[in-house]
Amino acid sequence: MAFQGKKLINDPNEVVTEFIEGLVETYPGLQYLDGFPEVKVVLRADVSWATYDKVAIISGGGSGHEPAHAGFVGEGMLTAAICGDVFASPNVDSILAGIRAVTGPMGCLLIVKNYTGDRLNFGLAAEQAKSEGYKIETVIVGDDCALPPPRGIAGRRGLAGTILVHKVAGAAAAAGLSLTDVAAEAKRASERVGTMGVALSVCTLPGQVTSDRLGQEKMELGLGIHGEPGAAVVDLQPVDVVVSHVLKQILSMETHYVTITRGSRVVLMINGLGATPLMELMIASGNAVHKLQLEHGLAVERVYTGSFMTSLDMAGFSISIMKADQAILQRLDAPTKAPAWPVGVDGSHPPAKIPVPLPLSRSTKSDEALSRPRELNQQGYLLEAAIEAAANAVINLRDDLNGWDSKVGDGDCGSTMFKGAMAILEDLKKYYPLNDAAETVNEIGSSVKTMGGTSGIIYNIFCKAAYAKLKESTSPAVTSRQWADVFEAAIAAVSKYGGARAGYRTLLDALIPASAVLRQRLDAGDDPTTAFLLSSEAALSGAESTKQMQAQAGRSSYVSGEILATVPDPGAMAAASWYRAAAVAVKEKCQGS
Amino acid sequence: MAFQGKKLINDPNEVVTEFIEGLVETYPGLQYLDGFPEVKVVLRADVSWATYDKVAIISGGGSGHEPAHAGFVGEGMLTAAICGDVFASPNVDSILAGIRAVTGPMGCLLIVKNYTGDRLNFGLAAEQAKSEGYKIETVIVGDDCALPPPRGIAGRRGLAGTILVHKVAGAAAAAGLSLTDVAAEAKRASERVGTMGVALSVCTLPGQVTSDRLGQEKMELGLGIHGEPGAAVVDLQPVDVVVSHVLKQILSMETHYVTITRGSRVVLMINGLGATPLMELMIASGNAVHKLQLEHGLAVERVYTGSFMTSLDMAGFSISIMKADQAILQRLDAPTKAPAWPVGVDGSHPPAKIPVPLPLSRSTKSDEALSRPRELNQQGYLLEAAIEAAANAVINLRDDLNGWDSKVGDGDCGSTMFKGAMAILEDLKKYYPLNDAAETVNEIGSSVKTMGGTSGIIYNIFCKAAYAKLKESTSPAVTSRQWADVFEAAIAAVSKYGGARAGYRTLLDALIPASAVLRQRLDAGDDPTTAFLLSSEAALSGAESTKQMQAQAGRSSYVSGEILATVPDPGAMAAASWYRAAAVAVKEKCQGS
Repeated sequence: MAFQGKKLINDPNEVVTEFIEGLVETYPGLQYLDGFPEVKVVLRADVSWATYDKVAIISGGGSGHEPAHAGFVGEGMLTAAICGDVFASPNVDSILAGIRAVTGPMGCLLIVKNYTGDRLNFGLAAEQAKSEGYKIETVIVGDDCALPPPRGIAGRRGLAGTILVHKVAGAAAAAGLSLTDVAAEAKRASERVGTMGVALSVCTLPGQVTSDRLGQEKMELGLGIHGEPGAAVVDLQPVDVVVSHVLKQILSMETHYVTITRGSRVVLMINGLGATPLMELMIASGNAVHKLQLEHGLAVERVYTGSFMTSLDMAGFSISIMKADQAILQRLDAPTKAPAWPVGVDGSHPPAKIPVPLPLSRSTKSDEALSRPRELNQQGYLLEAAIEAAANAVINLRDDLNGWDSKVGDGDCGSTMFKGAMAILEDLKKYYPLNDAAETVNEIGSSVKTMGGTSGIIYNIFCKAAYAKLKESTSPAVTSRQWADVFEAAIAAVSKYGGARAGYRTLLDALIPASAVLRQRLDAGDDPTTAFLLSSEAALSGAESTKQMQAQAGRSSYVSGEILATVPDPGAMAAASWYRAAAVAVKEKCQGS
Repeated sequence: MAFQGKKLINDPNEVVTEFIEGLVETYPGLQYLDGFPEVKVVLRADVSWATYDKVAIISGGGSGHEPAHAGFVGEGMLTAAICGDVFASPNVDSILAGIRAVTGPMGCLLIVKNYTGDRLNFGLAAEQAKSEGYKIETVIVGDDCALPPPRGIAGRRGLAGTILVHKVAGAAAAAGLSLTDVAAEAKRASERVGTMGVALSVCTLPGQVTSDRLGQEKMELGLGIHGEPGAAVVDLQPVDVVVSHVLKQILSMETHYVTITRGSRVVLMINGLGATPLMELMIASGNAVHKLQLEHGLAVERVYTGSFMTSLDMAGFSISIMKADQAILQRLDAPTKAPAWPVGVDGSHPPAKIPVPLPLSRSTKSDEALSRPRELNQQGYLLEAAIEAAANAVINLRDDLNGWDSKVGDGDCGSTMFKGAMAILEDLKKYYPLNDAAETVNEIGSSVKTMGGTSGIIYNIFCKAAYAKLKESTSPAVTSRQWADVFEAAIAAVSKYGGARAGYRTLLDALIPASAVLRQRLDAGDDPTTAFLLSSEAALSGAESTKQMQAQAGRSSYVSGEILATVPDPGAMAAASWYRAAAVAVKEKCQGS
């Protein structure tokens, strides 16, 4: 069954005029002639024939090749672009209007892609303009390398290489050269460029039915930009094979279309045909540069990658190679205000890659620092007790956590937390520098990485933020108020990066009340261990309160409120339990010591 | 039947690293860290942490959004981009490597699109970097307006509006602001932008099967950039209806996502999703500007149209609206070397359209000039005789021409030529200013327009070129040598624009030998009428000789040589016959007078 091609347009007959309106809204440097629908001419807003003292450069042709040609209007490139209907040559009156609008005493160069309709219409307009007294030269570009010579009257098609000719001519005109000299440079450029295309799909004209000429696993080589069939239909191949083939064809010594031999300097254009993602174009670029250098022995001076001369919504690209010398590079590199000409392409290439930097030396830890101290100080002693107790609490709660999680989540909360707790207990004995609270917290972060998944990252962020806060102090002894600050900073980081706030049914619903009570009790003058213990009670009741909360993310958000009301959030329960165990352990050790 | 999505790539697992290689080949201002495949970081080639004295701006996320984010690396925008695998958040080590590579004493701002994976990985990297002593701030962008609040932990997705935040932050950093101030500007920008997308197709991950989720006549509204389903699937509609709907949703007073009210200044971004031709994007731009101005009462200060934040090969676009003020416009307009940021967008808008220019006064002819003179001079008398004879010869040859053409072409050569000849005879009596040879030839050009088709243009070009040559002389009397020059110029124009040369089986095979003999005989001292007559014999034999020629274009090129050998080219025969008749008539009139 045939369907009309899907396009985001209005009336298929007005796509070109609506394109021009949008273009001019986007680029304040462009204007158009008020002659829709017959006259569709885009021109530089800063140029008028009455005052223009440079050679005007005009190109154009059928539409459907956007940004060509109107997107290349701007100082240093085209002075005006004449837009025909989709894939139809513009009429003579339209071309004449464009010539009259921008041509001053220096004259006008018409750059025409080699299609019979364009040659004849631009040709007649040129002769008419000459008879009106204008100085006009015409350069016809036929850069297609897909078909073997001789090409007869039709000759070689004009393809994306034309854009490079525009740039050379535009820069020569901007430099103040005469019409004869600008035309000579354009002609020279046109004789040094070859192009060939490859497509995965055909294009669909606005309002027309989509063709299924190409099968699902085929591609077309040597196509044009008007939907005409390519020279060959072949099986879809990896892009490096495709690029190899196309480059060989362009550089063929048999057709002798472009005389580029080993050691030549070239510029490369990879041109998307309308529906090709930039990722694919760049992959083709990288492959092509490599092959030009290694297989063809060429120096690739510039690479232009983008969608410059398209064929409506065709998927695929064309490759153009232009033989370059200093004069051509100078024209290609010259500044232009044409919006669609690529920027940042000139200049010499630094090494493509540089080494991955190592962490700054101030943060690299010696192996010695990363081992359990032989003697623990009071702080280290309490820290060890708290960590051990916390880890064991999580280990003991494994089945409960899994049970709760199986009702509201994917049932692995206990197992995941268990894995982290076991890693902590193991690393604690070997690596934790317990007399250094900051480094110990940092190491806990490394241990919990083994948990994997979101929880692993969340706890790692918790520890890293705590570590960064602890490092702000230069004293190795951490006060209880400092611990409160560290706790707050760690919670803030988890909230910020995790996106949860209080009431979202997460571990924060245990930790946030705990943090608040800790601060409150310390401010009220409670001794630290008591404050810690009271805070841990708040953690437990906070975790219990999650039963009343609606889940905001994950599988729990699809579970009914009735079920959720019977089960606390397992992440919150895990957090409350390790926090509670740590508080109890610290209390006991302080009382015992 | 399900097929693997068609893409021009090599190994689907290497699309991101190959993209980066091509990107860096294209843009010499970019480098990457030598840590493939784990570390995929693109950075400014001119920045090193050891010497960088500005705030570094880093963004990134999953790949598949090209040019985002690597294409926005450059002075004045991102300092580095961290690339994950396709649609997958980059790992923490990769982000850390990027931070370490470009962050100097001024610190680093991380701009993160609001996705859980990105938040967590960038978050952990930020905390790790802080613990290494770096100054880090993070701004999370969630500009999606497709779904109603509240959005819970997940929040609003980060979409193309993020690019505008990059630009604001990059410009603020380039201006030398502190990390705190840069972060504040980025946050402010992120709170003032809203985005919503519309798609015609879903995207296909490299190496994966193409989904047919969307039917042939459906489109999806409010989609994301990772192939997730949109908020609604609706029938395909004209783009102005689509644009209306999307704008209303973004500017909704109910969601209150962006607080933009009548009279506000805004910037607009129309962002292609990967496979959308620029023509369609520009049509959407023009429609959106119109509606923002007329229906929403907003001042549209800037329009950014292009493919900035794509979703692989998805067809469709997103619209972003950012509330703008002078401070934001200054940041958006600030220069940047980031290759994918659009150029030529700033500056005040001149009138979009200007009048179609009229022909220069020097070439407009008074009505008086365009009428048959009452008295003919000798030249006018001969000209009239030649034109009449030539036209009548063509008229008499109609059936022969049609007969020949029916064997080798489409059979209408005689009818077409007849139409032109009749028009000439009619106009001759009314308009031709026969005493002025140049203007008369010009009028013949106007008469033959009625022929239509390629022949009409070819003969029009012939006459215009002859006219331009005749106008070079200031004397009204045209010498025989001048006629020879005029003939040559007219033939050259037809050859140039028509693409044919001698031997291509066209009218030139009559005219070229005629022109050569005319020149030869005049040079040999023959009297002009004799030279003309001999020249016309060459035209006839030239036309006859086309029987031996292979056709180079048109339907004749598909006709066998055997058939071609029995028939002369009808175009050449027509040309020879009118030329011959003119020569005979001039000879007779000269002898008779």
